[in-house]
Amino acid sequence: MYPESLQKLIEGFKILPGVGDKTAERYALVVADTDEETIRQFASALIEVKEKLRPCKVCGNLCDGEICDICADPDRKHDTILVVQSAKDVIAMEKTGQYHGVYHVLNGAISPAKGILPEELNIDSLLERARQAREIILATSATVDGETTAMYLDKLLKKEVPAVLVTRIAHGLPSGGMLDYADEMTLVHALSDRRKME
Amino acid sequence: MYPESLQKLIEGFKILPGVGDKTAERYALVVADTDEETIRQFASALIEVKEKLRPCKVCGNLCDGEICDICADPDRKHDTILVVQSAKDVIAMEKTGQYHGVYHVLNGAISPAKGILPEELNIDSLLERARQAREIILATSATVDGETTAMYLDKLLKKEVPAVLVTRIAHGLPSGGMLDYADEMTLVHALSDRRKME
Repeated sequence: MYPESLQKLIEGFKILPGVGDKTAERYALVVADTDEETIRQFASALIEVKEKLRPCKVCGNLCDGEICDICADPDRKHDTILVVQSAKDVIAMEKTGQYHGVYHVLNGAISPAKGILPEELNIDSLLERARQAREIILATSATVDGETTAMYLDKLLKKEVPAVLVTRIAHGLPSGGMLDYADEMTLVHALSDRRKME
Repeated sequence: MYPESLQKLIEGFKILPGVGDKTAERYALVVADTDEETIRQFASALIEVKEKLRPCKVCGNLCDGEICDICADPDRKHDTILVVQSAKDVIAMEKTGQYHGVYHVLNGAISPAKGILPEELNIDSLLERARQAREIILATSATVDGETTAMYLDKLLKKEVPAVLVTRIAHGLPSGGMLDYADEMTLVHALSDRRKME
């Protein structure tokens, strides 16, 4: 129904998550209404990401070159490695400004349900890095897959690099959380991981 | 926080309606994960829309050339012009398959609230076309702006081309609509525009 050029763009937008016919149509019509210069910049940004963006050779985080800014920073503590599932998690942690070590991005989590096996994750290079580490902080999600991955890595790291301290981020009541809104597992964790008031 | 190339793409996605930081981030990360060929095609589709897509010289509908497929079709009734606010409305009407005349796209509606005046709409060329027409069907939305526009055009057309029949699409209960869910204005229209059972 739409002119061919617009129809192609509508199909293009449908590669985005959660974008169906209606949203793709809306996006494409806005593109048709936007000035050419802005759209050209947007198109180059798409190409540039594909040409420049690579996983960091050290930690697997996304970066525009060989080594990401965090791995290249001499002021970070390189013997403390925080293990996360994705590059998004690195950003989330960096926003706190409270972590001064480095990262390791697994690129997913072990998931028997989705058929994701340990071999598909960025684990070999973690073992390699672990030999020079003092502490490995397992910061995978507090979900079934995240916990499975943490347990798998804990077992593997204790076997391969027994001298390294392996820790897991705390589970408990989130900041601002109320007891009567928290689910049972959260409360179980909050209770079992309680600590002495100082 | 993100690598520069990814950050630029996130900004790019924010030109789309309803896309804020979080959604733009999600879209950009999916682009990073999608194969290069698909993204290159998407980028060319963006450029192509800007290079090819133009308003039809006759009716103002979007098309890839000078004249849209509908205006160029000798099988359509060129003396019946259905006036709509946007190219999207043309698609909506075409999907019914029940309209065989041509269109005229105003590119908006008169809106004192948004400061949109008749001069900013595609009205001069409608007057021009109206001289050769038999019927002009006003199919602007059943909103305040749409009604204002319909009333304005009705008055203008009756003055400039008094021989032409000017009609307005029907207002009433939508298909599948229940009386107790309909708003008062819909019921007022449904009642006043009632017709004899045949």
